[in-house]
Amino acid sequence: MEYRIGVDIGGTKIAAGLVNEEKEIVLKKSVPTRAGENYSLVVSDIADLIQDILDESHLQAADLSGIGIGCAGASDKESGIVLFSNNLGWRDVPLVPELKKRFDVPIHIDNDANAAALGEVLAGSAKGSRSCVMITLGTGVGGGIILDGKVYDGVNHAGGEVGHTVIVSGGEMCTCGRRGCFEAYASTTALIRMAKKAATAHPESRLYQIWQENGDLNGIGIFTAYHENDQTAKDAVAEYLFYVAEGVTNLVNIFQPEKIVIGGGICAQGDVILEPVRRQLAQDVFCKEVSLPDVVQATLGNDAGIIGAAYV
Amino acid sequence: MEYRIGVDIGGTKIAAGLVNEEKEIVLKKSVPTRAGENYSLVVSDIADLIQDILDESHLQAADLSGIGIGCAGASDKESGIVLFSNNLGWRDVPLVPELKKRFDVPIHIDNDANAAALGEVLAGSAKGSRSCVMITLGTGVGGGIILDGKVYDGVNHAGGEVGHTVIVSGGEMCTCGRRGCFEAYASTTALIRMAKKAATAHPESRLYQIWQENGDLNGIGIFTAYHENDQTAKDAVAEYLFYVAEGVTNLVNIFQPEKIVIGGGICAQGDVILEPVRRQLAQDVFCKEVSLPDVVQATLGNDAGIIGAAYV
Repeated sequence: MEYRIGVDIGGTKIAAGLVNEEKEIVLKKSVPTRAGENYSLVVSDIADLIQDILDESHLQAADLSGIGIGCAGASDKESGIVLFSNNLGWRDVPLVPELKKRFDVPIHIDNDANAAALGEVLAGSAKGSRSCVMITLGTGVGGGIILDGKVYDGVNHAGGEVGHTVIVSGGEMCTCGRRGCFEAYASTTALIRMAKKAATAHPESRLYQIWQENGDLNGIGIFTAYHENDQTAKDAVAEYLFYVAEGVTNLVNIFQPEKIVIGGGICAQGDVILEPVRRQLAQDVFCKEVSLPDVVQATLGNDAGIIGAAYV
Repeated sequence: MEYRIGVDIGGTKIAAGLVNEEKEIVLKKSVPTRAGENYSLVVSDIADLIQDILDESHLQAADLSGIGIGCAGASDKESGIVLFSNNLGWRDVPLVPELKKRFDVPIHIDNDANAAALGEVLAGSAKGSRSCVMITLGTGVGGGIILDGKVYDGVNHAGGEVGHTVIVSGGEMCTCGRRGCFEAYASTTALIRMAKKAATAHPESRLYQIWQENGDLNGIGIFTAYHENDQTAKDAVAEYLFYVAEGVTNLVNIFQPEKIVIGGGICAQGDVILEPVRRQLAQDVFCKEVSLPDVVQATLGNDAGIIGAAYV
């Protein structure tokens, strides 16, 4: 059996797993990310995590076919240097060279969203697809693009930033500095903004009541009201999904992929999310007469990032 | 010397050329497109055009390495069938199988915008680039995507429709049925709409005067006023270029290509078009700290479609 280790470096957590050639995680461990601290501490945490996995599996580094890293931001695949990562506060961090001092195996690196998309293609909801665009709806909107079975990330390894494509020119401010990005309309942050606005206009609504009871409003509260048939919640979710579908339609018109994979915590809502997106695609896609891609829910959750990282 | 013939089928004109291995057109001929008539007439026109080129060059079909077709719409590359082409009014036209009855050489087909982009990569302003996105600003907005030296057009050969990505959700109606597409803001049609609106609000402007004198307003009139320093024309062009740059920034954030090539008649304005786009990119691109693509003017004009078609 061939083994690899995949490491998913997020802003709050570093997760690593031993992945077998069936693309299954056979052992998984994680530690909190010491974001903002000196990068050498984080590198040391990653190395210790990898060593722990090797020790518990009674493996040596030499037994691995490779180690792969999925890291938020942009990394130079050749040099293994993280060029920048806003989540980690990193600029030009020699992550792979440092790890190579500890582990004498091939070590590769790519963007975490790309790794997650590759994970879904290798072992998840897009298994067997040659082309797939994955969007992850979370605090932001991440994107991973798989073309011809491989991650596409552009000449500078910073491509696939589908969250930072403007769909409402002059609209809501985005974290990237532009106005009206897909992320500013399709992130859960955006859903909460739309729901709060709708609830404020309808203080009689169940949505408003939940907001007041909990002191704040989050995705769980919004979908609780939604499933209790609260019209205000339904309207807010419909508004949100219109923009999700608007951005997804753009991506279909550009890529015409086999599959669109939707990930992030919100995708647990399944067809509540997927059906309106599918309907809007069927109406709006440019060459709908020829074909429409499958729109599916990501199935691997956080494991996608680990499995994909192992194979970047 | 190796020769190929490239054919560019547009809505108004069919242009074909004999292309040598230096990617130069050594002989070029064209005929009007009999759009809307029975497709067999158009196929016959194309075959005659190819035969004329062979005859004038004292070549036989067997001397060609291949024939390539760039055709508006979506075609199945494997079967050579044009699945649909709105410009030609075609559905499921067996173009390549019909041409093969006349010429016993390999015949390939792709979208005309993709062929033009490939032409610019092979012999024009993006020569030597591995990745390039070309947008053609005309009556509509065409897009051609070259990744790793090859045309990318998705699982159904209808990808790269970058003109039909919404940048102003709920905005101006687009020919595709959506509202707010890049095409509805970055085509010359859109520029004329913006200029007419600006001129109507400023009847004292030179722009308005040119419109009235000519009975209508076109790109030439708008840029005449622009170069005469008419503020109304300058404002309209600035508004238009903001949207051009908005869409180009989206494409850069998705693809991070080496080059962005801007084609279409309007690109003859050179830096008047390119500089504002470059400035907005330098401000708005997601990872501008890492790199920015070159934004260049297409240099081959209509020849790009012929040269690229020869090599699809």
